Amino acid sequence: MLNRICVVMVNTTHSGNIGAAARAMKNMGLSRLLLVDPIASIDEEAIQRSSRAEDILHNAEIHPTLESAIAGCGLVVGTSARSRSVPWPLMTPRQCGDRAAQAAAAGNDIALVFGRESRGLTNEELHLCNAHVHIPTDENFSSLNVAQAIQVMAYEMRLALTDVENAESEQRWGVDWDYPMATHDQLNGMLQHMEQTLVEIGFLDPNTPKQLMTRVRRLFQRAAPDRMEINILRGMLAAVQRRTDASESDERGDKA
Amino acid sequence: MLNRICVVMVNTTHSGNIGAAARAMKNMGLSRLLLVDPIASIDEEAIQRSSRAEDILHNAEIHPTLESAIAGCGLVVGTSARSRSVPWPLMTPRQCGDRAAQAAAAGNDIALVFGRESRGLTNEELHLCNAHVHIPTDENFSSLNVAQAIQVMAYEMRLALTDVENAESEQRWGVDWDYPMATHDQLNGMLQHMEQTLVEIGFLDPNTPKQLMTRVRRLFQRAAPDRMEINILRGMLAAVQRRTDASESDERGDKA
Repeated sequence: MLNRICVVMVNTTHSGNIGAAARAMKNMGLSRLLLVDPIASIDEEAIQRSSRAEDILHNAEIHPTLESAIAGCGLVVGTSARSRSVPWPLMTPRQCGDRAAQAAAAGNDIALVFGRESRGLTNEELHLCNAHVHIPTDENFSSLNVAQAIQVMAYEMRLALTDVENAESEQRWGVDWDYPMATHDQLNGMLQHMEQTLVEIGFLDPNTPKQLMTRVRRLFQRAAPDRMEINILRGMLAAVQRRTDASESDERGDKA
Repeated sequence: MLNRICVVMVNTTHSGNIGAAARAMKNMGLSRLLLVDPIASIDEEAIQRSSRAEDILHNAEIHPTLESAIAGCGLVVGTSARSRSVPWPLMTPRQCGDRAAQAAAAGNDIALVFGRESRGLTNEELHLCNAHVHIPTDENFSSLNVAQAIQVMAYEMRLALTDVENAESEQRWGVDWDYPMATHDQLNGMLQHMEQTLVEIGFLDPNTPKQLMTRVRRLFQRAAPDRMEINILRGMLAAVQRRTDASESDERGDKA
């Protein structure tokens, strides 16, 4: 189960943090490290701080963008100090462990996304997440080291995922579901299809779209649709597009 | 917070169960009892079994249908022995307490729905719920008395809702949300609007609609949309309908 968890570090500046993160992960039984456009390299300091978790460093995937790192994940959780202008589902680390255990038990990969040392994740990055998690801290001293944050989250993942085979687990949300969760890419494809359709029917002005699609994205990411649900939604959108095409008979041939 | 919780008993046969339920509720600090088309009346046995929780019995609301009982609730949870043909989000009682605490903290009323002594809730009733809850039992002796089930759930509600003001609570899903959750009626109105629109665009055949709308309903009930999200969805549907009207120029005047 723990091999479903991916730790994603975005734009990490200090190689020591990458090494310390690898150690924290290995202590808790995690192994999949993804580095998004890292500023630091896996150098001597990283290897030293990893303290014999070099295998995690050697197997770390490098991705150019967060989108490519999380493309195959069914549940994407971003760490965040506070909710932003549009509030997003926000979990405690323990709640996140629970949610991740449910997702993993249903056969999904989970991405835990950690931001830059200096300023965390951007709003755009946070908006790619199904939910956010906030690690409780003293409000007068609230900025956690990224490797410490990974330690806390890896610990909660271990607690939640290693007892998922107990009797209670059969009742968890997502287990015994009939279709697997959509991956980030599949959900994103549906949202792009929806955005395009909304523009075509004149509901969305592409020049002032921002909050509308953010709210639509949040709604569907919160629901974490399964693949059948995505198929149904895309079927609806295609049906709307066919009607729109039909009503634009003098523009036929423009759309497939 | 506990005054946000409604206990809904459907078609209850034995007045003693209603009395025992009232006692269990009052023990745990709950007070709102709704009886849907009760077969039993609030008679001497009910009052005796309530053991001085008569105020709950006297204030109990009688509703003709489950829909009317839950109309104003933001979160509706049905108790169920097992998931049915279309799987539904299924929670443990503890998870349900957590979810109810979140919903209550955000100002929503919560309905806990309990079925008939003999055969629980129907599939149609279960499909009106945002999620289902299953109380763990011995698999060889799994049928709980309805008042006992209410006792277990009321206990979990008390645990979850009376410590919701602690430091952790500020991070729970749904707290600090910008809009209140849609009520059951508002969500249902949107789903009916969607169903009508899907028929109009030829995506849904009203003669064989069943599983499609069940899946759509499950998706949106799981997401528990807020009121702004409902407004956005209804705006989309209205825009689709305007385009459909526009393409049926020889039928103008049929629709508003």
